[in-house]
Amino acid sequence: MTRNKNVVTIGGGTGSFTLLFGLKKYPVNISTIVSMADDGGSTGVLRDELGVLPPGDVRQCLVALSDSSENLRELMNYRFAEGGLKGHSFGNLFLSALEKINGGFSKGVEEAAKILDVRGEVIPVTEQDTNLHMLLKNGKLLTGQEEINHDADIEKIGMAKNYLKPKAKANKKALQRIREADMIVIGPGNHYCSIVPNFLVSGIPEGIKKSKAIVVCNCNLVNKPWHTEKFSLDDYVSQINKLIGAERIDYVTFNIQQPGEKLIKKYEDKRELLVDFQEKKKSKRKYRVIQADLLSDKKPKFSSSDVLAGHRSFIRHDSDKLAKVLMLIMEMGDYENIIKKII
Amino acid sequence: MTRNKNVVTIGGGTGSFTLLFGLKKYPVNISTIVSMADDGGSTGVLRDELGVLPPGDVRQCLVALSDSSENLRELMNYRFAEGGLKGHSFGNLFLSALEKINGGFSKGVEEAAKILDVRGEVIPVTEQDTNLHMLLKNGKLLTGQEEINHDADIEKIGMAKNYLKPKAKANKKALQRIREADMIVIGPGNHYCSIVPNFLVSGIPEGIKKSKAIVVCNCNLVNKPWHTEKFSLDDYVSQINKLIGAERIDYVTFNIQQPGEKLIKKYEDKRELLVDFQEKKKSKRKYRVIQADLLSDKKPKFSSSDVLAGHRSFIRHDSDKLAKVLMLIMEMGDYENIIKKII
Repeated sequence: MTRNKNVVTIGGGTGSFTLLFGLKKYPVNISTIVSMADDGGSTGVLRDELGVLPPGDVRQCLVALSDSSENLRELMNYRFAEGGLKGHSFGNLFLSALEKINGGFSKGVEEAAKILDVRGEVIPVTEQDTNLHMLLKNGKLLTGQEEINHDADIEKIGMAKNYLKPKAKANKKALQRIREADMIVIGPGNHYCSIVPNFLVSGIPEGIKKSKAIVVCNCNLVNKPWHTEKFSLDDYVSQINKLIGAERIDYVTFNIQQPGEKLIKKYEDKRELLVDFQEKKKSKRKYRVIQADLLSDKKPKFSSSDVLAGHRSFIRHDSDKLAKVLMLIMEMGDYENIIKKII
Repeated sequence: MTRNKNVVTIGGGTGSFTLLFGLKKYPVNISTIVSMADDGGSTGVLRDELGVLPPGDVRQCLVALSDSSENLRELMNYRFAEGGLKGHSFGNLFLSALEKINGGFSKGVEEAAKILDVRGEVIPVTEQDTNLHMLLKNGKLLTGQEEINHDADIEKIGMAKNYLKPKAKANKKALQRIREADMIVIGPGNHYCSIVPNFLVSGIPEGIKKSKAIVVCNCNLVNKPWHTEKFSLDDYVSQINKLIGAERIDYVTFNIQQPGEKLIKKYEDKRELLVDFQEKKKSKRKYRVIQADLLSDKKPKFSSSDVLAGHRSFIRHDSDKLAKVLMLIMEMGDYENIIKKII
């Protein structure tokens, strides 16, 4: 019997949820490395008031990988709508209480994984309490993920530097899983707020650079206004390769199924444009672009009680289509064959 | 094969927890009917702010009957210590979120029971939103369980009447379980705040009166100052029989193991006196008093994170001793034999 392949995903937020919900149906060992820079909403309040580490992104990954009842998964995403609890996600309270009881966030996440019957591992990228910062080219300093997420100057003025403060070292388990990985999957997700923060943690870029794994980047479907509004597929890849310190990305998955025109219009009204992909000569890219229909035509899952996630989920990846393409990439490693199978 | 016996317990609070934690080790069908009058602490805030039914007593019973991991049970009793969540028991938030998701408290409790792998049933005595009231003989009206619980005039002035407002009808499932019961177990627990409110729900006294079950009352170990400070065993029994409307209680369990003198002194300093038991001629009582060592010499369970429960738990029933006596009463129905076995 051959051993199951080790798949490591890197990301955070709703993008990770979508990816993992598909991946978990395959017989692979999934280790999800999750960004720990969130400081907005329910997560921000819990960080401030209880001094816990940010639970929001971890919660979404746990729910995605959970084999427990739909009721329990729905409960984890439930948000209180009134009173002093207003805005708090139940799952965030669950993780924060487990962190307190178990005397540490990672241990709390492990216990949560047992309770939720999680297939795979969810690994906070760092166990240190740190905050995302971004310095713009005009000297403006953005402090915290929430502030960065809502800033409208990033693309216009240009980013000079982004970093974590205090500096954070990678969780040892994250580094170990990267070392053992057969495939590393980056994204999809909010570029500056969910994806990039992982690469600002000391040890993560070096680990990926050294790793022998196939590295795949899932290109976002839609650009984020004022942040990556003018980004093409190549811009995303080049930024991540720069963070890794090597042209390490082997494959990029790219959706070629057009959403309905009405939906595109609705997104464009909010300055959310579909990510552009220019055909180039193969030689120009050091990575292969896997074009496929990756678009979801289903209603978002678990969004009924998770008001915040519901808004942004109409043009989004299909969990099963995305996982299938990734599995084909891993198993076959052969570009031409993949294309024939997918399109 | 003979069918398992049906045991119905009636109560609320820590007393029910202790009782159920022992009973669940026996092969009997346990249905716990739980008071729904609590309006203090975390429960009170949730009732006010979210418009939910009181989760606190139900939570304790669910935890007692849960076969899930100790970590999950500890989590349910965990209380947040800081910020806007301060004082909230995690388990209360769990039940309130499930009530919201499932569109009703009873349905939420059923889902909670599945998640917590509960052995038996936990049944809210009523599904109506109601509040405990007490009128004293001088016309003073106490509104709500919390106010009653902290009032120092009840015994001095005397209670004229206690009632629920609005009037509440019994949960149909509670009545069905009472009808099918082989044994009904009342208490232990806070007399006016956890035990009595169950008998103020329309249908419950009538159901018990008609039932063919053996009815057992677990006499409290310690009296509550200003409430039942001068109560003897017979006073407790007579009050409950009066509420039922018949001398329906067949057995009363009574602890005869003395706590250490230092502990008694500590309790007496808070005006908490051991319940008194006067030997009388048998003929004077219509119920039999089962005297046994029912005292716990263990440290309270789950109190490390449940600050509120921790305070009052030093002189308390031993779960296993209490359950054993109850099982003997049910199986043997023979007073003399029981006594020989127990003492």
